[in-house]
Amino acid sequence: MPVLPADVDAAGALIAGHVHRTPVLTSSALDSACDAQVFLKCENLQRVGAFKVRGAMNAVLSLDAATAVRGVACHSSGNHGQALALAAREQGLAAHVVMPTTAPEVKRAAVAGYGATIVDCAPTLAAREAALAEVLHTTGATEVHPYDDDRVIAGQGTACLELLEEVADLDAVAAPVGGGGLLSGTALAVAGHSPATAVVGAEPAGADDAHRSFRSGHLVGSSAPRTVADGLLASLSERTFAVIRASVSDIVTVEESAIISAMRFLWERTKLVVEPSAAVAVAAVLAGDVRGGRIGVILSGGNVDLDRLPWSEGRA
Amino acid sequence: MPVLPADVDAAGALIAGHVHRTPVLTSSALDSACDAQVFLKCENLQRVGAFKVRGAMNAVLSLDAATAVRGVACHSSGNHGQALALAAREQGLAAHVVMPTTAPEVKRAAVAGYGATIVDCAPTLAAREAALAEVLHTTGATEVHPYDDDRVIAGQGTACLELLEEVADLDAVAAPVGGGGLLSGTALAVAGHSPATAVVGAEPAGADDAHRSFRSGHLVGSSAPRTVADGLLASLSERTFAVIRASVSDIVTVEESAIISAMRFLWERTKLVVEPSAAVAVAAVLAGDVRGGRIGVILSGGNVDLDRLPWSEGRA
Repeated sequence: MPVLPADVDAAGALIAGHVHRTPVLTSSALDSACDAQVFLKCENLQRVGAFKVRGAMNAVLSLDAATAVRGVACHSSGNHGQALALAAREQGLAAHVVMPTTAPEVKRAAVAGYGATIVDCAPTLAAREAALAEVLHTTGATEVHPYDDDRVIAGQGTACLELLEEVADLDAVAAPVGGGGLLSGTALAVAGHSPATAVVGAEPAGADDAHRSFRSGHLVGSSAPRTVADGLLASLSERTFAVIRASVSDIVTVEESAIISAMRFLWERTKLVVEPSAAVAVAAVLAGDVRGGRIGVILSGGNVDLDRLPWSEGRA
Repeated sequence: MPVLPADVDAAGALIAGHVHRTPVLTSSALDSACDAQVFLKCENLQRVGAFKVRGAMNAVLSLDAATAVRGVACHSSGNHGQALALAAREQGLAAHVVMPTTAPEVKRAAVAGYGATIVDCAPTLAAREAALAEVLHTTGATEVHPYDDDRVIAGQGTACLELLEEVADLDAVAAPVGGGGLLSGTALAVAGHSPATAVVGAEPAGADDAHRSFRSGHLVGSSAPRTVADGLLASLSERTFAVIRASVSDIVTVEESAIISAMRFLWERTKLVVEPSAAVAVAAVLAGDVRGGRIGVILSGGNVDLDRLPWSEGRA
């Protein structure tokens, strides 16, 4: 039974009060630059600084009591680890987050700060998966994958659900795509509540596996993805690809310079701290690759290192 | 007849639809750091990136037709010039903005972009005032002072008015103070709608004329003010001082390092781009200088040069 639009509605009801209902903001400067009305769903203002807490919260709140008591686990070097740690802590559950020893100290501290147990591993996918398997075996914890999980997909869709509740008659909604959790959740929300609205995924040209999969009609993996948008390095799973094939209108790609320009534009003109991954969807709109007079954008997150801003790299 | 709380209410009705109703945001990280519930009134997300458009809009919309047709004028090297230019353009009026030849090109371009006529002058107060007097004489335009003007004060108070409409039972509201337009408007809004709430002004220690005036009970000028919070270099006028003496609970000062720390905290944890002046009030709350369990803060603006962030000065 695949994940359905109704699952997004159920997730919205389940996680209400556990996550922020983030504001939808507009900017006349952005509208002028895009020649459209653009509605920014500000998940950078979400708890833990990213939409990821929606999916993690929905997954944790969906567990039955007997399962929940054994805790949850994931491997993550980014926002999902923090999100799962927070969701677990609030339900009084243990969380185990497998992190490579090379993960930035600030990210390790954030995960630990939410009370999760960090499990170190070598910085390879094989080592991460082996460490996670060991954790699952030892603790009986439930894995909550960052995107290859119906509960997570449904949770991520609630950002768009809220957007659609506040803004009618959108011609298109744009969202960034990495592993596809946010994009597939967004597509489900649109399918359920605004089927005439197009859903466009935006992907860095340097990590364009979703674009290639979408265009070719079969799932292709990524090879050595390389982009400033470090939240979008993951590849689609069969699960997210199935939703995306069925419900997404297009996946477009954006060059690195356009990502950085869009990010700077958002900081300067909308006064929002967004991470490069969030700027990817805005870059696609600025490039004219998302058609329509009324366009919603999921601003996915705002977690950046203020000492390493992409426009000052090389200057410092 | 001094400016009264009812003038703020009238301004709120007059400018509604002409300015953004900005969101009030909260942050659990900020609450933890302050040991209080903090409500951020996000005027950094306001049109032109600062609360200044409220006062300018109220002043312009208050003009009678015969006066309005002759246009408006000010001298400003900052946000007020842009705000007045925007307000005038929307009413189809001429705006004349006297700017020193040393003003950053980006600020001149912004004022010109809103359709105002820029009048160059030498970078001294005497030259600015002389140039403005000449403009007023030649054109018959109405001066709209950045803070020494009842219509401007009443307009600035509408930010707090909206905050009080959304958040009840505030123990205190904190706002930064330079010339005192925002602080006196804030105090009037509180006096009218939540008289049990304390109003605290926050000022850089390096530009502490308002603090000294408030404590001594007589207006003292500033001498060589020096602070990263370049929006707070102006001194109180008799008009703003009168309101502040009557209605403000305290004015506290904040060191430069605390301003920069608070600014960085806001960027990192709340994902809001705020200018140093806006961080001053948050710095006061973080320092424990604003008492209470529920504290409102007017985040005054977000106009900063992303190539010259205070925490990277000296690195670049």
